[in-house]
Amino acid sequence: MNITGSMLIGGKAVRSEQETFTGFDRVSGEPLAPDYTPAGPQHIDEAVALAGEAFPVFRRLSPVARADFLNCCADEILALGDALVERAVAESGLPLGRISGERDRTVNQLRLFAAVLREGSYLDVRIDEALPDRPGMPRPDLRSQQIGLGPVAVFGASNFPLAFSVAGGDTASALAAGCPVVVKAHPAHPGTSEMVALALCAAVRKCELPVGVFSLLFDSGIAVGQSLVSHPGIRAVGFTGSFAAGMALKKIADQREQPIPVYAEMGSVNPVFLFPEALQARGEELARGFAASVTLGAGQFCTNPGLAFAVRSPALESFVATLAEAIAEVPAQTMLTSAIQGTYASAAAELEASDGVECVAAGLTDATGSAAEARLLTTTAARFLADRVLSHEIFGPCSLLVVCESEQDFLRLAQEMEGQLTVTLQLDDGDLPLAARLLPVLEDKAGRILCNGFPTGVEVCHAMVHGGPFPASSDGASTSVGSMAIRRFLRPVCYQNFPPELLPEALQGENPYEVERLINGEQTPG
Amino acid sequence: MNITGSMLIGGKAVRSEQETFTGFDRVSGEPLAPDYTPAGPQHIDEAVALAGEAFPVFRRLSPVARADFLNCCADEILALGDALVERAVAESGLPLGRISGERDRTVNQLRLFAAVLREGSYLDVRIDEALPDRPGMPRPDLRSQQIGLGPVAVFGASNFPLAFSVAGGDTASALAAGCPVVVKAHPAHPGTSEMVALALCAAVRKCELPVGVFSLLFDSGIAVGQSLVSHPGIRAVGFTGSFAAGMALKKIADQREQPIPVYAEMGSVNPVFLFPEALQARGEELARGFAASVTLGAGQFCTNPGLAFAVRSPALESFVATLAEAIAEVPAQTMLTSAIQGTYASAAAELEASDGVECVAAGLTDATGSAAEARLLTTTAARFLADRVLSHEIFGPCSLLVVCESEQDFLRLAQEMEGQLTVTLQLDDGDLPLAARLLPVLEDKAGRILCNGFPTGVEVCHAMVHGGPFPASSDGASTSVGSMAIRRFLRPVCYQNFPPELLPEALQGENPYEVERLINGEQTPG
Repeated sequence: MNITGSMLIGGKAVRSEQETFTGFDRVSGEPLAPDYTPAGPQHIDEAVALAGEAFPVFRRLSPVARADFLNCCADEILALGDALVERAVAESGLPLGRISGERDRTVNQLRLFAAVLREGSYLDVRIDEALPDRPGMPRPDLRSQQIGLGPVAVFGASNFPLAFSVAGGDTASALAAGCPVVVKAHPAHPGTSEMVALALCAAVRKCELPVGVFSLLFDSGIAVGQSLVSHPGIRAVGFTGSFAAGMALKKIADQREQPIPVYAEMGSVNPVFLFPEALQARGEELARGFAASVTLGAGQFCTNPGLAFAVRSPALESFVATLAEAIAEVPAQTMLTSAIQGTYASAAAELEASDGVECVAAGLTDATGSAAEARLLTTTAARFLADRVLSHEIFGPCSLLVVCESEQDFLRLAQEMEGQLTVTLQLDDGDLPLAARLLPVLEDKAGRILCNGFPTGVEVCHAMVHGGPFPASSDGASTSVGSMAIRRFLRPVCYQNFPPELLPEALQGENPYEVERLINGEQTPG
Repeated sequence: MNITGSMLIGGKAVRSEQETFTGFDRVSGEPLAPDYTPAGPQHIDEAVALAGEAFPVFRRLSPVARADFLNCCADEILALGDALVERAVAESGLPLGRISGERDRTVNQLRLFAAVLREGSYLDVRIDEALPDRPGMPRPDLRSQQIGLGPVAVFGASNFPLAFSVAGGDTASALAAGCPVVVKAHPAHPGTSEMVALALCAAVRKCELPVGVFSLLFDSGIAVGQSLVSHPGIRAVGFTGSFAAGMALKKIADQREQPIPVYAEMGSVNPVFLFPEALQARGEELARGFAASVTLGAGQFCTNPGLAFAVRSPALESFVATLAEAIAEVPAQTMLTSAIQGTYASAAAELEASDGVECVAAGLTDATGSAAEARLLTTTAARFLADRVLSHEIFGPCSLLVVCESEQDFLRLAQEMEGQLTVTLQLDDGDLPLAARLLPVLEDKAGRILCNGFPTGVEVCHAMVHGGPFPASSDGASTSVGSMAIRRFLRPVCYQNFPPELLPEALQGENPYEVERLINGEQTPG
């Protein structure tokens, strides 16, 4: 499947007459052929209209048929072979091993949702049988299930050109829910986006689904995304990116005639609490682990540990010394785009120049001088609490260590903390009493709490929560990773006193899908 | 427990210095003692602060302890005895039988959520065990559960002085989720509100819970509610009422520094499709059932059937004749407040005066001339589709019959329909093919679809959905009635690699709460 610089609208390759743009080879800086064209209003209308036509058919497929489609998408992505990995490496500047792992993750994610569909409990089938003889008021037969919300707009993310882009977590969970998807590709990796979109369109054809199940639109700016979110035919939005962009989309969605949910994962500083006993017992190991986590993939993860809290002690001094050494050895890294690289450099410099902030270590510079240099900065708890700007996320390989005077500061810092995707506790047995006091506060502030690990590396599984209270997510009760992500795109419908012939399959008495059901309040296996 | 005209803030009876207001005896029109005072800013702050203090304790109670509390609330409400029923009848003008039934419903609702807590699957416990030897990347131990969102603001509704007011569905589900509740009472039934609040405060004391678990605030206008929704300590809102009021609250919530979810059930016209064969076979029975449903409780239900669609036929003519007869015999009814009564009269008159709308029947007038008279109006499908105003809800005993030229009109009317709480199909076997064509459209537009019943009467059970796509609800994926309503006030938290001592009870290996768990993707019973 060769890329031609096209959008894919209901399976058709389409270009517009507007000004072209390209991806870039992040190493050479050279533009990469082919060039791409932004969608015009008619392309948005057509993609959404086709999605709307596909919706009633697609959402009423049997879960097994939709599972087969998701597995077919996975197969088609793998069939793209090395060409996909090479293109994504070139466009993102991310290392081969990372991109190859990300492809596996993308494929496994599609297969996980296929398994969720086959298992069937996502349908949440509930049956309350009729009680015709109930004194006072007879009860009718009531049955409910979850159905798809409608066409979903998905925004490709710059930092996961595969796993949070065209066929990433948002797309996989929306398709699993029975929602057609219109993707607005991230302009930093258009070739990767077109390749993956071709794979999805091939799966749509092979499974003989309505063509509108999937479309891909391009834009070099923000106009197409904004129009898509305000389009009456779109019923929900999946987004991963910056706070400013996420909030702009949420505002558009809130102000529509018919408001729709925006599931925006807007990043996080992911504080790490370094407890005293842990620092004492294994400060050196912690320092090396921390340095690796904060600089992994040039720090371009939503779960990058941008903040650490520790109490002043000799153990902390050794920790900082080892960490500084490790950071100083980290080579400068090419970031996803030159714009991201520029933003990182100025944000890190600004933080370094803030009152009461000191630079403890800087990573290596490269020959160009433009690649991202790692940074370890430090400040005091008092200073940190006085200046909210210090708690803002910097997207890149930079972390701020906040030195506390006592363990009491931990509680205060936790209480003042904004919503986070993750919070990490590095602790030993002796730290447990303090951790137990902190935990109720942290549970209220984060989607995921880790002990003795680092927050980078988000497992795609059933228990994962990759979301968190605002501003980490626009909807703090949602996750964009893991099987629970399907819930964002479902809603319940209740059928009262339906004749058997009219009941949807999942709700029929003989349980044709063999799913777990809640019958008169009792869970019954499938 | 005597009422004293007080708010209840963390169990303390409080009055302000502001201008007083009272409830009214809806029959005599006389003010009812005692008088009540609106909350000042300090009362709102105090109630929310106490709720915030109570939250970490309350949400971490065992589910069984919270179930005991809900059952205690139910007992305390029943212990109020006839005085509660009498006061609610006086303040609402609703008949004794209705209020007495509503008290049962309120109590049963609290007990249903107690049962949900004891059953435990609401916790949605998920465990993905560590895979330390997985090639490539070891998997850590990951466990997740649902926890409460935080303090919830609940608005009492005028039309359910018990079941959707101080201890109604929103309060019961929020408390079940572990969220303290601050209620803004509806000013139409302050005495009823104070009585129920006293019962809840007694339950808080008996169960030795933090006093901030429940508070009650008053206002004669909208300022207190607005301040409550904008208060940083409030984390979610439950509301039942008009579209205008619901949207005003949603707008405030969206514009907060930290936006919060507003679960507003904003009413509906609840269309009834009268299929040809059903009209032919049992038109007379349908007409009597329809008349009873539309005039029940003066039409003051969110599920009142304000709209009916039928194809022109001799059977329809007989149906209309019988329906007109039945409507003409309905006595004028006292509505919940004189303001609601006035709004109904002018809205019905305005609809009647609309181009192409005819009055088919009017109910009886009463001696005062101010009680609500039932109305049956009619128009054509063409006219209805041309004037969107005709599809708006009129809160009261009024319905508009839309006469179609052919069955094709049904599909068109369904497609043009706004989001609804309910849609009803009156059908016989011969109507099934047409109904099957309509169903996919209706599923996308309504929270509940009924066959051969009437939408009034909302069963509180597991399969119930009382919500629906916008504008029926501000969040079309939620329900405010039934056990699923608890989900509105929960969010997931994931615990990675936690030492057993620090893990919340629900997630511990030995399953101390004996709840169903999803372990490595497999449902395991409790």
